[in-house]
Amino acid sequence: MSNAAQLQPVLDRIDADFDNSLERLFALLRIKSISADPAFAGDCRAAADHLARDIATLGFVTEVRPTAGHPAIVAKANGGKGRPHVLFYGHYDVQPVDPLNLWHRPPFEPVVTDHADGRKIIVARGAEDDKGQLMTFVEACRAWKSVTGSLPVDITIVIEGEEEIGSKNFVPFLEKNKADLKADFALVCDTGMWDPNTPAITTSLRGLVYDEVRIKAANRDLHSGIFGGGAQNPIRVLTRILGGLHDDNGRITIPGFYDGVKDLPPDILAQWKNLNLTPDSFLKPIGLSIPAGEKDRLLIEQVSSRPTCDINGIIGGYTGEGSKTVIAAEASAKVSFRLVEGQQPDRIRQAFRDYVTARLPGDCKAEFIDHSNAPAIALDWNMKPLAAAKRALTDEWGKEALLIGSGASIPIVADFKRTLGLDTVLVGFGLDDDNIHSPNEKYDLKSFHKGIRSWARILAALAEAPR
Amino acid sequence: MSNAAQLQPVLDRIDADFDNSLERLFALLRIKSISADPAFAGDCRAAADHLARDIATLGFVTEVRPTAGHPAIVAKANGGKGRPHVLFYGHYDVQPVDPLNLWHRPPFEPVVTDHADGRKIIVARGAEDDKGQLMTFVEACRAWKSVTGSLPVDITIVIEGEEEIGSKNFVPFLEKNKADLKADFALVCDTGMWDPNTPAITTSLRGLVYDEVRIKAANRDLHSGIFGGGAQNPIRVLTRILGGLHDDNGRITIPGFYDGVKDLPPDILAQWKNLNLTPDSFLKPIGLSIPAGEKDRLLIEQVSSRPTCDINGIIGGYTGEGSKTVIAAEASAKVSFRLVEGQQPDRIRQAFRDYVTARLPGDCKAEFIDHSNAPAIALDWNMKPLAAAKRALTDEWGKEALLIGSGASIPIVADFKRTLGLDTVLVGFGLDDDNIHSPNEKYDLKSFHKGIRSWARILAALAEAPR
Repeated sequence: MSNAAQLQPVLDRIDADFDNSLERLFALLRIKSISADPAFAGDCRAAADHLARDIATLGFVTEVRPTAGHPAIVAKANGGKGRPHVLFYGHYDVQPVDPLNLWHRPPFEPVVTDHADGRKIIVARGAEDDKGQLMTFVEACRAWKSVTGSLPVDITIVIEGEEEIGSKNFVPFLEKNKADLKADFALVCDTGMWDPNTPAITTSLRGLVYDEVRIKAANRDLHSGIFGGGAQNPIRVLTRILGGLHDDNGRITIPGFYDGVKDLPPDILAQWKNLNLTPDSFLKPIGLSIPAGEKDRLLIEQVSSRPTCDINGIIGGYTGEGSKTVIAAEASAKVSFRLVEGQQPDRIRQAFRDYVTARLPGDCKAEFIDHSNAPAIALDWNMKPLAAAKRALTDEWGKEALLIGSGASIPIVADFKRTLGLDTVLVGFGLDDDNIHSPNEKYDLKSFHKGIRSWARILAALAEAPR
Repeated sequence: MSNAAQLQPVLDRIDADFDNSLERLFALLRIKSISADPAFAGDCRAAADHLARDIATLGFVTEVRPTAGHPAIVAKANGGKGRPHVLFYGHYDVQPVDPLNLWHRPPFEPVVTDHADGRKIIVARGAEDDKGQLMTFVEACRAWKSVTGSLPVDITIVIEGEEEIGSKNFVPFLEKNKADLKADFALVCDTGMWDPNTPAITTSLRGLVYDEVRIKAANRDLHSGIFGGGAQNPIRVLTRILGGLHDDNGRITIPGFYDGVKDLPPDILAQWKNLNLTPDSFLKPIGLSIPAGEKDRLLIEQVSSRPTCDINGIIGGYTGEGSKTVIAAEASAKVSFRLVEGQQPDRIRQAFRDYVTARLPGDCKAEFIDHSNAPAIALDWNMKPLAAAKRALTDEWGKEALLIGSGASIPIVADFKRTLGLDTVLVGFGLDDDNIHSPNEKYDLKSFHKGIRSWARILAALAEAPR
């Protein structure tokens, strides 16, 4: 029987088994696999083991392999009959959960609950990013295997545990396992839909440079009564330098920052204008109303095709209750840049560091820590699997799938190209209100259910697609 | 026998009993009376009870009296023979101890140890500020009482427990107990010497306005990949506003900030120039070399006669290990201003808040918390007890006692004047390298010993002084 003919029973199976799919996702969500905090290294290992055991039941030859950090899973199911071979990528690690007091429920006790507007949602850290998303693919494979005894295409699954901390150890892992990860193209499920009813394939991604700067002045904390006015204050220096990173028009002032950045082609810009991303639709749900980026750019440009700078964290001095008249010995900030095509991460990092250093007053030193470094990605809109995936998504959702640019960074896409020579198809079912990286992360129940069905269709379509 | 004739046996007694004086100070230093943190309220109470019990043994009628916050001690020893009556003030509360990891020893386990340059020092939180200082006075009283059976003058001791958090409940307490706190003038031991060998009386104090500002934007933390560039970032807003508080010449840019600020009289400026406070003597010990204040002012002006602005703390976003691509929903800072004569605290606070509010972009809100509010003090250089104290200090240290201005704030001095009509004589034995409000706070053993002897002499001198 052809894959196309078998699709309907597979979809029916997904519907019938959905409660079990949900319970399997919950089991994964209960594991506290926070990669950023060494205290959770055991939980990261547990998540890898748990997933590997599960995937092995689907006929994959599965291994948990060590990296220099948290382990990765490699699982292979090859028919060996000259079929298309896809490499599916996801990550089992999640973001830290602080501030914990803003969660309405414990972040690692998943539930299905009602969103204010009536949508059913799954709430937990990782519900979307990336446990919910990666399980849509795993569950689609399960349905195919269960109904037909096999999978429509050859599949290698690779799941890492350090995506949220920059995949530093995963890239060498790719290099080392290159021979073992050969495929025709990659599939990644870590992106979003256009809106709750409109599926999308992401064809461009911003890059990311993430730096930490620490400014030091005196050799100890000082009393502001004795030294105030005479001694350099590192918080004053830090705010002065960071406060100058944007000009009055929202442009970034670092010399050379926009070098190589191109305007959108007029036809794409026209399409984007039609998408009508407005402050009302995009910012109002988060309590805002005014686009905060470059004043002469559309909101959709600000969040997807323009480079940005955000201060992600800052700390210095006394931050407890009440007051303390201290001049701190040091202050630090975490600063990140979303990059677009044409910008080189190394150059941007150096330009930022030069900017800071040039503005340091006497008696101050600056130290820097490199947290991540990924170029922007522009995928080929004409790659063949894209058309198959687009058709499958359109069939499932009953609405034309859009090709969109994403403001976020998925550095692994560039690494797949460079290391393995693979192009990537980015399909995901996240929504802008999923609160990923925030308290009360959620995934729409519909995203999870129709996400599984979407992958079942995509696998069938890829089996038939010209290569 | 006259007080003058009894002085030498009193001083001898102080020398003979010094080891016990030190042990009594240690007992007080072991009590964790951190007023800023509600978790230590019981310790504050314990410190008050401990001191009250001790002072009662010196013939004072002693009470621990409640305030709306931590309790205060009132102790009275009146001869009732028309003698001078002094009100001595100190505080038993101490600053928080964070960052704890920078202490070489636990902050509440006092020891005597050797300073790098050979001086013997007492190390503990509160060793100087203000437990060590207030105990110099208590021990001087003990010696007089022990040798002569009485005190040379009438004394009311008042010790509060909230000086480090702005004395908010102590000022109403003064009002309420006004009738009970009558005296001829006040003595405060919470200031410093000019250098380790030169005693000083402080005749001017800077005021203090301490405000906290919290800037809020989105209704939740956001992912910088999805919203970066389009959504307002409160840390960016906060750094931009605070980073503009000083101009390139180190002047504060808040409109009206310098209104009413007068230059030093030429004769005082000439005296101060002679004191020769250099970057080498004042800044080098703290690892700095360049005065950070207004470029056209002497270093001694910057730290004592000019108003300043310091950011004492800042926090926002992700501040843990590693990285998190978050745009925080809010960010906050603690900002304080040292004021000089002519500046009104309420006006300065309002001017700061107006400055922040005027610079807030759309979608941002600012909230403020008032932490303290004290005007600058300029004491009368000709007040009569000053001459007696100066003579006594000069006798003890063998070096002319200086009349100096202090950069720090002791708001209670203004409250004594306003509430009780009292002028204050400020004598203290602190040094610039005492690390008050910092890790490894210390008090020179010599300061403690000769401080006790100094007060013994001052009490004798005040008994004879013209009123």
